[in-house]
Amino acid sequence: MTSAGPDADERDGALPPTLVVGCGLIGTSIALALQEQGIRVHLSDADPEHVRVAVARGAGLSEPVADPALVVVAVPPAITSSVVQAALQDWPGAVVTDVASVKADLLAAVQAGPHAERYVGSHPMAGSERSGPAAASGQLFEGRPWVLVPTTVATDAAVRLVEEVAVMLGAVPVTMDARDHDAAVALVSHVPQVMATLAAARLCAAPSAHLALAGQGLRDVTRIAGSDPHLWREILSGNATAVRDVLASVRVDLDHVIDALGSSDDLAGVLEAGRAGAGRIPGKHGGARPDLGTVFVQISDSPGALSRLFARVGTSGVNIEDLRIDHELGRPVGLVEIAVLADRAAELVTVLTDDGWTAYQ
Amino acid sequence: MTSAGPDADERDGALPPTLVVGCGLIGTSIALALQEQGIRVHLSDADPEHVRVAVARGAGLSEPVADPALVVVAVPPAITSSVVQAALQDWPGAVVTDVASVKADLLAAVQAGPHAERYVGSHPMAGSERSGPAAASGQLFEGRPWVLVPTTVATDAAVRLVEEVAVMLGAVPVTMDARDHDAAVALVSHVPQVMATLAAARLCAAPSAHLALAGQGLRDVTRIAGSDPHLWREILSGNATAVRDVLASVRVDLDHVIDALGSSDDLAGVLEAGRAGAGRIPGKHGGARPDLGTVFVQISDSPGALSRLFARVGTSGVNIEDLRIDHELGRPVGLVEIAVLADRAAELVTVLTDDGWTAYQ
Repeated sequence: MTSAGPDADERDGALPPTLVVGCGLIGTSIALALQEQGIRVHLSDADPEHVRVAVARGAGLSEPVADPALVVVAVPPAITSSVVQAALQDWPGAVVTDVASVKADLLAAVQAGPHAERYVGSHPMAGSERSGPAAASGQLFEGRPWVLVPTTVATDAAVRLVEEVAVMLGAVPVTMDARDHDAAVALVSHVPQVMATLAAARLCAAPSAHLALAGQGLRDVTRIAGSDPHLWREILSGNATAVRDVLASVRVDLDHVIDALGSSDDLAGVLEAGRAGAGRIPGKHGGARPDLGTVFVQISDSPGALSRLFARVGTSGVNIEDLRIDHELGRPVGLVEIAVLADRAAELVTVLTDDGWTAYQ
Repeated sequence: MTSAGPDADERDGALPPTLVVGCGLIGTSIALALQEQGIRVHLSDADPEHVRVAVARGAGLSEPVADPALVVVAVPPAITSSVVQAALQDWPGAVVTDVASVKADLLAAVQAGPHAERYVGSHPMAGSERSGPAAASGQLFEGRPWVLVPTTVATDAAVRLVEEVAVMLGAVPVTMDARDHDAAVALVSHVPQVMATLAAARLCAAPSAHLALAGQGLRDVTRIAGSDPHLWREILSGNATAVRDVLASVRVDLDHVIDALGSSDDLAGVLEAGRAGAGRIPGKHGGARPDLGTVFVQISDSPGALSRLFARVGTSGVNIEDLRIDHELGRPVGLVEIAVLADRAAELVTVLTDDGWTAYQ
């Protein structure tokens, strides 16, 4: 990293500039969101093409920065520690944060080095199975948890700055201990990733005639198995202890299922536990789900059918809270589930039925 | 089952009536689809409430049938064999089929009894994590595979009739050997169900603060874990051998992952295999996916935003092939992915951008 020339200095506005190191999905999304808030962002990445795409998306400037108030390190997990420590060294006036999905070992490494009082670990809980700056969105963090994992030596000012950034980006800051964080993400993110991978890996050797019977359930279970394997091998090996703990319990349950096959009574326990666990996943901001009703609408794959349906719902005055299409890509006919406030569902059914749709609650 | 009285006889039309035994999701959906084709359907179920709901949905008549040409047995897996054999006995003029998800043991049992020449096993590959007649749809089978599993003694006429019914319902008939079918569904349906259950079961004892970090990936992986545990214990124990074979391979991979944690090189193989397997899941009718492009649109959760978006897409002349909303229920802002024919994507981006949306490819 080099210091900025006079051109960069002349652009300094009222708000102190931020440097985002790493223009992947998360780095570029943070840059886009900061720029939308009027903060000047400088971008760097080992790959100049990533910077070019991020600049073209309006995420910031490719010119070197002079004196950043904040450095956001959004590089692959395996090099996060060294890039954070270099940033602390290079920018003596900056608070440094990162976005890595695993925190305990990283924090220990940074805290063992100099300038750790200006470092605050972050983990914005947002992402996608897509990667790279083209998939970035300045609204990626809206309503999502943003975990802050300060070291014991972090200054209050540093913690406050990173918390302010999270709030500015629409996220919900949550402060957690590093080991507690790593255990949580092992459970809700890393182990589900392994389970998707294990289910999908079985398909490699399958006859095409067997795969032709696949439905939406298989697609859902295996969707995240399409994620970047390089990123995930770093995440999983970086959180090895916590992931291994959960997988050990999975293995106990798996052995139980294998033993219990052939006796439906013995299978009941784990199936009931799975249903109960799925039911515990919270809705909005970790709070209760709003009281929603579902309207089912049958649609054909004739040109424009889905568009006509949404045009009709759009003029009905009933707000769509969420929706889901229960069909595969290109399947001729499907069932659209439209979630609306519970007390508006009957009204929407009437509107759609009057318009010739097959709709029901 | 009793024979029909004069009232039912008077209703006999040109098409021979069908009896659907079991008014759950699948039975009621078949009944709805047959009625839409002008075939008179009679319904029965051990639970009178199921019959009442199915009749109210327009799926058929609750009166006893006189002389059905076809009996569709759509009851829980554990009692399918005995209900099929009773139907073959009770209705000497009827072809009998069923919809159970596991076939080898069932076929062996029916074939060992009398009248097996009038029996043809079926497995329509359609379903939902919802159950019961209220969730039924006459279009549930459109474009879906419908596996026919005839016994060696089935008459050609019986096989032809069940095949005609599948085609009439919009499904794609596929004839398979019973053991081959059971191996296929173990892979694409039963084992993914177990994987979803195992991932979800880990959430039962998790602190709420950990669950609050859940995102869309966890929701997708665990969605089908919310399915009916009673149905699934019957399905899994009914297909014990084939499911155990696949789970044994899963266990080998799981042990490998547990051993390899801490060394990202050793994890690469299974992660690459998972990604490759997920990429093999076919699109429409088991064929290649059409050449689609994705348009990303940012939306806020302000009232009507989603409806306004679809109203605008609906008037654009560009057909929505598929779509996905990348947010949780009630999340304030999300990213809508609209799949359109690849050569129309740029046009849709222009239309939406001109209209003030943040849209990109």
